[in-house]
Amino acid sequence: MLYTSEAIESAIESLSSLPTIGRKTAQRLALHLLRQPKEDVQKLAHALLDMKEKVRYCSQCCNLTESDPCNICTSNKRNRTIICAVEEPSDLFAIERTNEYQGLYHVLHGALNPLEGIGPNDLKIKELLQRLSSGEVQEIILATNPNVEGEVTTQYLIKLLKPLHVKVSRLARGIPMGSDLEFADEATVSRALQGRVEV
Amino acid sequence: MLYTSEAIESAIESLSSLPTIGRKTAQRLALHLLRQPKEDVQKLAHALLDMKEKVRYCSQCCNLTESDPCNICTSNKRNRTIICAVEEPSDLFAIERTNEYQGLYHVLHGALNPLEGIGPNDLKIKELLQRLSSGEVQEIILATNPNVEGEVTTQYLIKLLKPLHVKVSRLARGIPMGSDLEFADEATVSRALQGRVEV
Repeated sequence: MLYTSEAIESAIESLSSLPTIGRKTAQRLALHLLRQPKEDVQKLAHALLDMKEKVRYCSQCCNLTESDPCNICTSNKRNRTIICAVEEPSDLFAIERTNEYQGLYHVLHGALNPLEGIGPNDLKIKELLQRLSSGEVQEIILATNPNVEGEVTTQYLIKLLKPLHVKVSRLARGIPMGSDLEFADEATVSRALQGRVEV
Repeated sequence: MLYTSEAIESAIESLSSLPTIGRKTAQRLALHLLRQPKEDVQKLAHALLDMKEKVRYCSQCCNLTESDPCNICTSNKRNRTIICAVEEPSDLFAIERTNEYQGLYHVLHGALNPLEGIGPNDLKIKELLQRLSSGEVQEIILATNPNVEGEVTTQYLIKLLKPLHVKVSRLARGIPMGSDLEFADEATVSRALQGRVEV
């Protein structure tokens, strides 16, 4: 046995099953944890267990939450007439970080991907349509990722939502801030031209 | 609160305190774990706790071990007349991976670094000298890292060990396998020249 301890071996194995963590990084993490005070390792382990124990999906927006409905769905500072549909909770966090958006969210938990067998029933689309039945919602912002799967999902949702007489919008595509027009790819420049804004 | 859940927030905080893991990676890891079955998260958490609980230092070679003395120190397949001194357990693993070395080890747990206040008493040097008192050891291989701290540590150990009438050797410095002479740095080429071997 390489590590002279089965406990180290299985910790490295568990760590290296995480995304972006290979065996070498896992070894570095395990050896780092062995140098730390026992309390720090306990804090990390309990934080992970605690998170897995407490966090579930909000029954309204399907976001991650400890209390159901989640803080955003129950907040009275939020504009309840507008819903932003995103693929993953991490996309929701990205929008929240801007402090720009004051409406509600809907987390689809994925994007349509026929090649991998992910169809409409695997996403939280039914739940989104149910939220429209109250008639309170006036606009849906489709904020899927700008790749093939996200585009397919958006087109599918547009077809579903248009007949429901709700305003459907999507995020602007264009040149990202701080970048150079020279180095932007053709698809981005072409979208920026199509979406040009009168000043 | 950004993450709509304190449990996610504190898991991300704990994860991002690990080396090489920033806040974005920590968020990705936390969201990944939330998608995994509960058993997997428990397995990871318990593997970390278990490792921290069971693993300690071998009283002879100061390597990480569950049983004291460690597997290497108690193995009867090992050559007990030769000790390889390394800075960290990860260096020991690197040498073990070669399957070349059949002697014992001594883990110093660091290198001399006066700027950071790491002196000889912070390393397991006393323990190394104690092991020589039995007279069984005939050779010490100094396998510190090829940087300033490693070099200082090696020079210090040479001064200590030479009067003890034990053979002291060190790892060869030279061109690494699979690299290009053209791209090797001056210090490496110069060491390779100094250490040239007659064929």
